[in-house]
Amino acid sequence: MNLIGTQGQDGQKNLAIFSSVIHMGSNPPLIGFIQRPTTVDRHTYENIISTSYYTINAVTEDLSMKAHQTSARYEKNENEFEETSIEHEYLNGFLAPFVKNTPMKIGLKLEDIIPIEANNTKLIIGKVEQLHINEDYIEEDGRIRIEDTTIVGGAGLDTYLRTEKHGRYSYAKPDETLKNL
Amino acid sequence: MNLIGTQGQDGQKNLAIFSSVIHMGSNPPLIGFIQRPTTVDRHTYENIISTSYYTINAVTEDLSMKAHQTSARYEKNENEFEETSIEHEYLNGFLAPFVKNTPMKIGLKLEDIIPIEANNTKLIIGKVEQLHINEDYIEEDGRIRIEDTTIVGGAGLDTYLRTEKHGRYSYAKPDETLKNL
Repeated sequence: MNLIGTQGQDGQKNLAIFSSVIHMGSNPPLIGFIQRPTTVDRHTYENIISTSYYTINAVTEDLSMKAHQTSARYEKNENEFEETSIEHEYLNGFLAPFVKNTPMKIGLKLEDIIPIEANNTKLIIGKVEQLHINEDYIEEDGRIRIEDTTIVGGAGLDTYLRTEKHGRYSYAKPDETLKNL
Repeated sequence: MNLIGTQGQDGQKNLAIFSSVIHMGSNPPLIGFIQRPTTVDRHTYENIISTSYYTINAVTEDLSMKAHQTSARYEKNENEFEETSIEHEYLNGFLAPFVKNTPMKIGLKLEDIIPIEANNTKLIIGKVEQLHINEDYIEEDGRIRIEDTTIVGGAGLDTYLRTEKHGRYSYAKPDETLKNL
Protein backbone atom coordinates (compact mmCIF):
# COMPACT_ATOMS: atom_id res chain seq x y z
CA MET A 1 0.00 0.00 0.00
CA ASN A 2 1.24 3.45 -0.82
CA LEU A 3 0.53 7.08 -0.06
CA ILE A 4 0.83 9.49 -2.97
CA GLY A 5 1.87 13.02 -2.02
CA THR A 6 1.31 16.05 -4.22
CA GLN A 7 0.84 19.76 -4.00
CA GLY A 8 -0.91 22.31 -6.15
CA GLN A 9 0.61 25.36 -7.80
CA ASP A 10 -0.60 27.28 -4.75
CA GLY A 11 1.37 25.00 -2.41
CA GLN A 12 -1.75 23.24 -1.07
CA LYS A 13 -0.61 19.74 -0.10
CA ASN A 14 -2.54 16.55 -0.74
CA LEU A 15 -2.02 12.95 0.38
CA ALA A 16 -4.02 9.92 -0.73
CA ILE A 17 -3.73 6.15 -0.33
CA PHE A 18 -3.50 3.91 -3.42
CA SER A 19 -3.50 0.12 -3.63
CA SER A 20 -2.85 0.09 -7.37
CA VAL A 21 0.83 1.06 -7.60
CA ILE A 22 2.72 -1.14 -10.06
CA HIS A 23 6.29 -1.56 -11.26
CA MET A 24 6.33 -0.89 -15.02
CA GLY A 25 9.99 -1.43 -15.81
CA SER A 26 13.53 -0.79 -14.62
CA ASN A 27 15.22 0.91 -17.55
CA PRO A 28 14.00 3.63 -17.58
CA PRO A 29 12.70 3.25 -14.00
CA LEU A 30 8.93 3.62 -14.35
CA ILE A 31 6.13 3.16 -11.84
CA GLY A 32 2.43 3.31 -12.63
CA PHE A 33 -0.80 3.59 -10.71
CA ILE A 34 -4.47 3.44 -11.63
CA GLN A 35 -6.48 6.62 -11.24
CA ARG A 36 -10.21 5.97 -10.86
CA PRO A 37 -12.69 7.86 -13.04
CA THR A 38 -12.23 11.60 -12.59
CA THR A 39 -15.95 12.36 -12.56
CA VAL A 40 -15.61 13.69 -9.01
CA ASP A 41 -12.75 15.79 -7.71
CA ARG A 42 -9.52 13.89 -7.72
CA HIS A 43 -7.03 16.16 -6.03
CA THR A 44 -4.03 13.89 -6.52
CA TYR A 45 -4.67 13.72 -10.26
CA GLU A 46 -5.26 17.46 -10.60
CA ASN A 47 -2.03 18.26 -8.77
CA ILE A 48 -0.01 15.83 -10.89
CA ILE A 49 -1.42 17.33 -14.09
CA SER A 50 -0.69 20.78 -12.80
CA THR A 51 2.87 20.32 -11.45
CA SER A 52 4.13 17.01 -12.99
CA TYR A 53 5.68 15.92 -9.68
CA TYR A 54 4.52 13.48 -7.00
CA THR A 55 5.82 11.13 -4.34
CA ILE A 56 5.01 7.49 -3.63
CA ASN A 57 5.54 6.53 0.01
CA ALA A 58 5.24 3.02 1.45
CA VAL A 59 2.64 2.58 4.20
CA THR A 60 3.98 1.05 7.42
CA GLU A 61 2.13 -0.63 10.29
CA ASP A 62 2.38 2.58 12.33
CA LEU A 63 1.03 4.66 9.46
CA SER A 64 -1.72 2.28 8.34
CA MET A 65 -4.65 3.69 10.33
CA LYS A 66 -3.84 7.28 9.38
CA ALA A 67 -3.09 6.26 5.80
CA HIS A 68 -6.48 4.58 5.54
CA GLN A 69 -8.09 7.77 6.80
CA THR A 70 -6.70 9.70 3.78
CA SER A 71 -9.30 7.83 1.69
CA ALA A 72 -12.03 9.98 3.26
CA ARG A 73 -13.47 12.64 0.95
CA TYR A 74 -11.74 15.72 2.25
CA GLU A 75 -12.33 19.04 0.51
CA LYS A 76 -9.73 20.43 -1.84
CA ASN A 77 -8.73 23.10 0.66
CA GLU A 78 -8.16 20.46 3.35
CA ASN A 79 -4.71 18.94 3.64
CA GLU A 80 -4.68 15.23 4.46
CA PHE A 81 -1.23 15.45 6.05
CA GLU A 82 -2.71 17.80 8.63
CA GLU A 83 -6.14 16.15 8.84
CA THR A 84 -4.64 12.74 9.62
CA SER A 85 -1.52 13.87 11.50
CA ILE A 86 0.87 12.28 9.01
CA GLU A 87 4.13 14.22 9.03
CA HIS A 88 5.55 15.46 5.74
CA GLU A 89 9.03 16.51 4.65
CA TYR A 90 10.64 18.06 1.59
CA LEU A 91 13.80 16.32 0.35
CA ASN A 92 16.57 17.39 -2.04
CA GLY A 93 14.59 20.27 -3.46
CA PHE A 94 11.84 17.97 -4.77
CA LEU A 95 8.62 19.90 -5.37
CA ALA A 96 6.14 17.39 -3.91
CA PRO A 97 5.98 16.49 -0.20
CA PHE A 98 7.20 13.12 1.07
CA VAL A 99 5.82 11.22 4.06
CA LYS A 100 8.35 11.55 6.88
CA ASN A 101 8.12 8.32 8.86
CA THR A 102 8.48 5.61 6.25
CA PRO A 103 11.66 3.75 5.23
CA MET A 104 10.82 3.83 1.50
CA LYS A 105 9.76 6.84 -0.58
CA ILE A 106 10.05 7.69 -4.23
CA GLY A 107 9.97 11.04 -6.03
CA LEU A 108 8.51 10.84 -9.55
CA LYS A 109 8.02 13.04 -12.57
CA LEU A 110 4.94 12.46 -14.70
CA GLU A 111 5.87 10.55 -17.86
CA ASP A 112 2.53 9.67 -19.45
CA ILE A 113 -1.19 9.41 -18.78
CA ILE A 114 -2.89 6.55 -20.55
CA PRO A 115 -6.69 6.48 -20.76
CA ILE A 116 -8.22 3.04 -20.19
CA GLU A 117 -11.40 2.96 -22.24
CA ALA A 118 -12.63 -0.31 -20.75
CA ASN A 119 -13.60 1.35 -17.45
CA ASN A 120 -12.79 5.03 -17.81
CA THR A 121 -9.77 4.86 -15.49
CA LYS A 122 -6.29 6.17 -16.29
CA LEU A 123 -2.85 4.65 -15.95
CA ILE A 124 -0.55 7.36 -14.60
CA ILE A 125 3.10 6.61 -15.36
CA GLY A 126 5.96 8.36 -13.59
CA LYS A 127 9.72 8.21 -13.92
CA VAL A 128 11.69 7.76 -10.71
CA GLU A 129 13.75 10.88 -9.95
CA GLN A 130 14.56 10.27 -6.29
CA LEU A 131 14.64 7.12 -4.19
CA HIS A 132 14.92 7.33 -0.41
CA ILE A 133 15.39 4.00 1.32
CA ASN A 134 16.62 3.40 4.85
CA GLU A 135 20.06 1.85 4.30
CA ASP A 136 19.53 -0.67 7.10
CA TYR A 137 17.27 -2.58 4.73
CA ILE A 138 19.52 -2.71 1.66
CA GLU A 139 21.60 -5.86 1.22
CA GLU A 140 25.05 -5.87 -0.35
CA ASP A 141 23.68 -7.13 -3.66
CA GLY A 142 21.08 -4.38 -3.73
CA ARG A 143 18.06 -6.38 -2.62
CA ILE A 144 15.73 -4.48 -0.29
CA ARG A 145 14.62 -6.50 2.71
CA ILE A 146 10.97 -5.40 2.58
CA GLU A 147 10.15 -8.22 4.99
CA ASP A 148 12.34 -6.69 7.71
CA THR A 149 10.63 -3.31 7.45
CA THR A 150 7.14 -2.73 8.83
CA ILE A 151 5.82 -1.89 5.35
CA VAL A 152 2.34 -3.31 4.79
CA GLY A 153 0.58 -4.67 1.74
CA GLY A 154 -3.13 -4.56 1.14
CA ALA A 155 -6.00 -6.91 0.33
CA GLY A 156 -9.24 -5.52 -1.00
CA LEU A 157 -10.19 -2.02 0.10
CA ASP A 158 -9.74 -2.25 3.84
CA THR A 159 -7.28 -4.92 4.95
CA TYR A 160 -3.59 -4.35 5.65
CA LEU A 161 -1.08 -7.18 5.68
CA ARG A 162 2.35 -7.63 7.20
CA THR A 163 4.92 -9.62 5.24
CA GLU A 164 7.48 -12.23 6.17
CA LYS A 165 10.12 -13.80 3.93
CA HIS A 166 9.17 -17.19 2.54
CA GLY A 167 12.07 -17.76 0.15
CA ARG A 168 14.43 -16.33 -2.40
CA TYR A 169 15.32 -18.26 -5.53
CA SER A 170 18.10 -17.85 -8.04
CA TYR A 171 17.70 -16.95 -11.72
CA ALA A 172 15.81 -19.81 -13.34
CA LYS A 173 17.09 -21.81 -16.32
CA PRO A 174 15.44 -24.71 -18.11
CA ASP A 175 16.33 -27.87 -16.19
CA GLU A 176 15.30 -31.40 -17.07
CA THR A 177 15.63 -32.66 -13.50
CA LEU A 178 12.75 -30.47 -12.35
CA LYS A 179 10.20 -32.53 -14.19
CA ASN A 180 10.20 -34.90 -11.24
CA LEU A 181 9.86 -32.30 -8.47
CA MET B 1 2.61 -13.40 -7.29
CA ASN B 2 0.60 -15.06 -10.01
CA LEU B 3 0.90 -17.75 -12.64
CA ILE B 4 -0.74 -17.03 -15.98
CA GLY B 5 -1.99 -20.09 -17.84
CA THR B 6 -2.70 -20.12 -21.57
CA GLN B 7 -2.82 -22.47 -24.48
CA GLY B 8 -2.33 -22.08 -28.20
CA GLN B 9 -4.80 -22.92 -30.95
CA ASP B 10 -2.99 -26.25 -31.19
CA GLY B 11 -3.66 -27.01 -27.49
CA GLN B 12 -0.02 -26.44 -26.46
CA LYS B 13 -0.17 -25.24 -22.84
CA ASN B 14 1.95 -22.48 -21.36
CA LEU B 15 2.44 -21.24 -17.80
CA ALA B 16 4.44 -18.19 -16.71
CA ILE B 17 4.92 -16.26 -13.49
CA PHE B 18 4.06 -12.54 -13.33
CA SER B 19 4.62 -10.06 -10.52
CA SER B 20 2.78 -7.26 -12.28
CA VAL B 21 -0.87 -8.28 -11.94
CA ILE B 22 -3.07 -5.36 -10.93
CA HIS B 23 -6.72 -4.78 -10.06
CA MET B 24 -8.11 -2.28 -12.58
CA GLY B 25 -11.69 -1.95 -11.37
CA SER B 26 -14.69 -3.85 -10.06
CA ASN B 27 -17.54 -2.91 -12.39
CA PRO B 28 -16.84 -4.34 -14.90
CA PRO B 29 -14.39 -6.66 -13.12
CA LEU B 30 -11.07 -6.00 -14.85
CA ILE B 31 -7.55 -7.17 -14.07
CA GLY B 32 -4.40 -6.04 -15.85
CA PHE B 33 -0.81 -7.16 -16.11
CA ILE B 34 2.30 -5.74 -17.71
CA GLN B 35 3.78 -7.63 -20.63
CA ARG B 36 7.47 -6.92 -21.16
CA PRO B 37 8.73 -5.97 -24.63
CA THR B 38 7.82 -8.67 -27.11
CA THR B 39 11.14 -8.54 -28.94
CA VAL B 40 11.81 -12.15 -27.94
CA ASP B 41 9.24 -14.92 -27.93
CA ARG B 42 6.55 -14.29 -25.38
CA HIS B 43 4.42 -17.40 -25.39
CA THR B 44 1.85 -16.13 -22.91
CA TYR B 45 1.22 -13.04 -25.01
CA GLU B 46 1.05 -14.95 -28.27
CA ASN B 47 -1.48 -17.39 -26.85
CA ILE B 48 -3.66 -14.60 -25.43
CA ILE B 49 -3.66 -12.81 -28.78
CA SER B 50 -4.48 -16.04 -30.52
CA THR B 51 -7.27 -17.39 -28.25
CA SER B 52 -8.40 -14.39 -26.09
CA TYR B 53 -8.56 -16.56 -22.95
CA TYR B 54 -6.18 -16.95 -20.02
CA THR B 55 -6.11 -17.79 -16.32
CA ILE B 56 -4.51 -15.99 -13.39
CA ASN B 57 -3.63 -18.31 -10.52
CA ALA B 58 -2.28 -17.23 -7.11
CA VAL B 59 1.13 -18.66 -6.17
CA THR B 60 1.21 -20.44 -2.80
CA GLU B 61 4.16 -21.34 -0.57
CA ASP B 62 4.08 -24.91 -1.87
CA LEU B 63 4.02 -23.73 -5.48
CA SER B 64 6.59 -20.94 -5.16
CA MET B 65 9.73 -22.84 -6.16
CA LYS B 66 8.08 -24.44 -9.17
CA ALA B 67 6.34 -21.18 -10.06
CA HIS B 68 9.69 -19.38 -10.03
CA GLN B 69 11.07 -22.02 -12.36
CA THR B 70 8.46 -21.10 -15.01
CA SER B 71 10.48 -17.91 -15.55
CA ALA B 72 13.18 -19.99 -17.29
CA ARG B 73 13.31 -19.58 -21.07
CA TYR B 74 11.60 -22.75 -22.20
CA GLU B 75 11.03 -23.30 -25.88
CA LYS B 76 7.59 -22.78 -27.37
CA ASN B 77 7.06 -26.52 -27.73
CA GLU B 78 7.87 -27.09 -24.06
CA ASN B 79 5.02 -26.97 -21.58
CA GLU B 80 5.88 -25.34 -18.24
CA PHE B 81 3.18 -27.30 -16.42
CA GLU B 82 5.03 -30.46 -17.36
CA GLU B 83 8.55 -29.03 -17.11
CA THR B 84 7.98 -27.82 -13.53
CA SER B 85 5.51 -30.51 -12.38
CA ILE B 86 2.74 -28.00 -11.67
CA GLU B 87 -0.62 -29.75 -12.08
CA HIS B 88 -3.24 -28.20 -14.34
CA GLU B 89 -7.00 -28.58 -14.58
CA TYR B 90 -9.76 -27.42 -16.89
CA LEU B 91 -12.83 -25.93 -15.17
CA ASN B 92 -16.37 -25.20 -16.35
CA GLY B 93 -15.48 -25.51 -20.01
CA PHE B 94 -12.97 -22.64 -19.84
CA LEU B 95 -10.51 -22.80 -22.74
CA ALA B 96 -7.32 -21.99 -20.83
CA PRO B 97 -5.78 -24.28 -18.20
CA PHE B 98 -5.92 -23.41 -14.49
CA VAL B 99 -3.32 -24.34 -11.87
CA LYS B 100 -4.79 -27.15 -9.77
CA ASN B 101 -3.38 -26.68 -6.28
CA THR B 102 -4.13 -23.06 -5.45
CA PRO B 103 -7.09 -21.67 -3.50
CA MET B 104 -7.58 -18.70 -5.85
CA LYS B 105 -7.79 -18.74 -9.65
CA ILE B 106 -9.43 -16.48 -12.18
CA GLY B 107 -10.50 -17.13 -15.78
CA LEU B 108 -10.29 -14.04 -18.00
CA LYS B 109 -11.20 -12.97 -21.50
CA LEU B 110 -8.97 -10.43 -23.21
CA GLU B 111 -10.56 -6.98 -23.13
CA ASP B 112 -7.84 -4.66 -24.41
CA ILE B 113 -4.12 -4.40 -25.10
CA ILE B 114 -2.65 -1.00 -24.40
CA PRO B 115 0.81 -0.17 -25.72
CA ILE B 116 3.01 1.76 -23.26
CA GLU B 117 5.28 3.93 -25.36
CA ALA B 118 7.47 4.98 -22.44
CA ASN B 119 9.18 1.59 -22.27
CA ASN B 120 7.70 -0.52 -25.04
CA THR B 121 5.70 -2.72 -22.66
CA LYS B 122 1.98 -3.50 -22.93
CA LEU B 123 -0.83 -3.40 -20.43
CA ILE B 124 -2.98 -6.49 -21.05
CA ILE B 125 -6.48 -6.04 -19.64
CA GLY B 126 -8.85 -8.96 -19.11
CA LYS B 127 -12.43 -9.25 -17.91
CA VAL B 128 -13.11 -11.79 -15.18
CA GLU B 129 -15.27 -14.62 -16.49
CA GLN B 130 -14.72 -17.23 -13.78
CA LEU B 131 -13.57 -16.94 -10.19
CA HIS B 132 -12.61 -20.04 -8.24
CA ILE B 133 -11.90 -19.43 -4.56
CA ASN B 134 -11.77 -21.99 -1.79
CA GLU B 135 -14.89 -21.19 0.26
CA ASP B 136 -13.04 -21.76 3.53
CA TYR B 137 -11.42 -18.38 3.00
CA ILE B 138 -14.50 -16.30 2.19
CA GLU B 139 -16.05 -14.40 5.10
CA GLU B 140 -19.78 -13.75 5.40
CA ASP B 141 -19.39 -10.18 4.15
CA GLY B 142 -17.47 -11.38 1.10
CA ARG B 143 -13.95 -10.51 2.23
CA ILE B 144 -11.34 -13.07 1.23
CA ARG B 145 -8.97 -13.97 4.05
CA ILE B 146 -5.81 -13.92 1.92
CA GLU B 147 -3.77 -13.93 5.13
CA ASP B 148 -5.16 -17.34 6.14
CA THR B 149 -4.22 -18.92 2.83
CA THR B 150 -0.62 -19.76 1.94
CA ILE B 151 -0.70 -17.36 -1.02
CA VAL B 152 2.59 -15.47 -1.38
CA GLY B 153 3.43 -11.99 -2.55
CA GLY B 154 6.65 -10.97 -4.21
CA ALA B 155 9.43 -8.41 -3.78
CA GLY B 156 11.78 -7.70 -6.65
CA LEU B 157 12.42 -10.51 -9.08
CA ASP B 158 13.28 -13.35 -6.75
CA THR B 159 11.83 -13.00 -3.25
CA TYR B 160 8.56 -14.51 -2.08
CA LEU B 161 6.70 -13.21 0.96
CA ARG B 162 4.10 -14.70 3.27
CA THR B 163 1.39 -12.39 4.61
CA GLU B 164 -0.23 -11.95 7.98
CA LYS B 165 -3.17 -9.71 8.87
CA HIS B 166 -2.19 -6.41 10.42
CA GLY B 167 -5.57 -4.69 10.55
CA ARG B 168 -8.85 -3.97 8.86
CA TYR B 169 -10.39 -0.52 8.96
CA SER B 170 -13.90 0.70 8.24
CA TYR B 171 -14.87 3.06 5.41
CA ALA B 172 -13.18 6.38 6.13
CA LYS B 173 -15.02 9.70 6.49
CA PRO B 174 -13.61 13.14 7.25
CA ASP B 175 -13.27 13.42 11.04
CA GLU B 176 -12.01 16.42 12.95
CA THR B 177 -10.91 14.35 15.95
CA LEU B 178 -8.22 12.64 13.90
CA LYS B 179 -6.12 15.76 13.66
CA ASN B 180 -4.75 14.89 17.09
CA LEU B 181 -3.95 11.23 16.44
